[in-house]
Amino acid sequence: MFYIIDILGTIAFAISGVLVALNKRMDAFGILIIAFVTAVGGGTLRDILIGETPVSWMKDMTFIYVVIASTIFAVVFRSKIDYLRKSLFLFDTIGIGLYTVVGVEKGISAGLHPIICIFLGTMSACFGGVIRDILCNEIPVIFRKEVYATACILGGATYFLVIKLPIASNFVFVIAGAVVITVRLIAVKFKISLPSLYKD
Amino acid sequence: MFYIIDILGTIAFAISGVLVALNKRMDAFGILIIAFVTAVGGGTLRDILIGETPVSWMKDMTFIYVVIASTIFAVVFRSKIDYLRKSLFLFDTIGIGLYTVVGVEKGISAGLHPIICIFLGTMSACFGGVIRDILCNEIPVIFRKEVYATACILGGATYFLVIKLPIASNFVFVIAGAVVITVRLIAVKFKISLPSLYKD
Amino acid sequence: MFYIIDILGTIAFAISGVLVALNKRMDAFGILIIAFVTAVGGGTLRDILIGETPVSWMKDMTFIYVVIASTIFAVVFRSKIDYLRKSLFLFDTIGIGLYTVVGVEKGISAGLHPIICIFLGTMSACFGGVIRDILCNEIPVIFRKEVYATACILGGATYFLVIKLPIASNFVFVIAGAVVITVRLIAVKFKISLPSLYKD
Repeated sequence: MFYIIDILGTIAFAISGVLVALNKRMDAFGILIIAFVTAVGGGTLRDILIGETPVSWMKDMTFIYVVIASTIFAVVFRSKIDYLRKSLFLFDTIGIGLYTVVGVEKGISAGLHPIICIFLGTMSACFGGVIRDILCNEIPVIFRKEVYATACILGGATYFLVIKLPIASNFVFVIAGAVVITVRLIAVKFKISLPSLYKD
Repeated sequence: MFYIIDILGTIAFAISGVLVALNKRMDAFGILIIAFVTAVGGGTLRDILIGETPVSWMKDMTFIYVVIASTIFAVVFRSKIDYLRKSLFLFDTIGIGLYTVVGVEKGISAGLHPIICIFLGTMSACFGGVIRDILCNEIPVIFRKEVYATACILGGATYFLVIKLPIASNFVFVIAGAVVITVRLIAVKFKISLPSLYKD
Repeated sequence: MFYIIDILGTIAFAISGVLVALNKRMDAFGILIIAFVTAVGGGTLRDILIGETPVSWMKDMTFIYVVIASTIFAVVFRSKIDYLRKSLFLFDTIGIGLYTVVGVEKGISAGLHPIICIFLGTMSACFGGVIRDILCNEIPVIFRKEVYATACILGGATYFLVIKLPIASNFVFVIAGAVVITVRLIAVKFKISLPSLYKD
């Protein structure tokens, strides 16, 4: 079940990478690398920081195949991808919910402080997009206008609140992930964003 | 004592990150991440390269709290931060002195060659700012006009000259750090910078 | 023999870094760092991802000295470097051939899947240039127009085809490297590049 969600998230992340790379007029190799980095970059950075190497995508080929297939699909149907925008947004949102909780749990296994765990969860979910934007020579979009990281932080915090209750750990996982997804959906629906704090 | 210097350095680095992020019109999350990366990025890269993971800020929450507090402070008082410019410059300069020597000593513990140790010290002190500038889509400022890295390199080299003398290791630490600080202060006071070597 | 090729490759990579950095009007320190990162960045990223730390250039000072000497040479003779363009192109091409196969073999020693090994080889050869371009605030050139990575991928794939034949492992190394070099030379000679796939 979680595995399927993980794959859906990977598809959404990879396609978002393809779309950005196409706009930057990259060649086939560049597009594939950007798709790949967007999909696995956050988890890779997390694994490197906690010292879990070789990093996880080196040990399970499924994600490599999913990224390659998604990239080919997105390039072939690039003029029709707009029709999928809603599904992709949904996959992406479910994906960050899952990635956040997986990151939090990896931090807990490594014996780290809850705040660090929340940070690791947020990084797993968001930093693929950050690396994508850096490689494409843009200021990362999540630093400017999306309630993306905030949703992950709230979901991670929920994890540590809920885990003290007498409920099964699978439920904790689902509840924390649901918080991420709900916050993100609400923020996008009502166009809520963080203020820029820039002084004019 | 060193711990207090370390915290002052972290404050100065975090605030420099906030100021750059504000200018780029980032939102609250982006500002916090840039502050954090500026403060801990150099040491993190050093720890990853020598394989000391989980990286050091994951094991001592003090720095996380200092970064968060500094960020809130800098955002709230952003219109008044100019009055602090001199203190911040001083904290920052003391901070790179300390970070350089800490980096050199980490390299020595890992059994590395003196040149590599000097490199690690310089990286600890300077690469937080490099990552900050990359995330903000700028060419890193230290590659262009500041005698910043040069001060660190001279301080690191001093460490290896002085350590052969019959003096206490605490003194070696202080002397090397003082060289970094002095070189930087003199360079800024007399507006000395490295030539750009660009051929017109 | 391989060691000499490795050094020639390092020289070519370092000089390519110096030329980009000079164009960006960096100072002496910036130029040295860009030269260094271009020369060792790909291998460093590979070592970090598979967890082989301290990374390899920390353990063999030769490459540090080669980078420093190449940088000084390139800066001093910067107005004459055009005469060397052909030799540099040749060194660079031989260098990526070698780096690719070394990367593939490191992946095999780490027990990784052939596709991951090919990826590691390509990364060893190409990502020094990617990091150089990011630090210089450019979209990495290999994502846009060079048949650079493709040559590495084909060479890496050749390695796994040829290794099943009953020939000495040294020959496998040479054949795979030669494929990288040949593909790159042919692509440049006949101005072959990957299509950009951008929809107008």
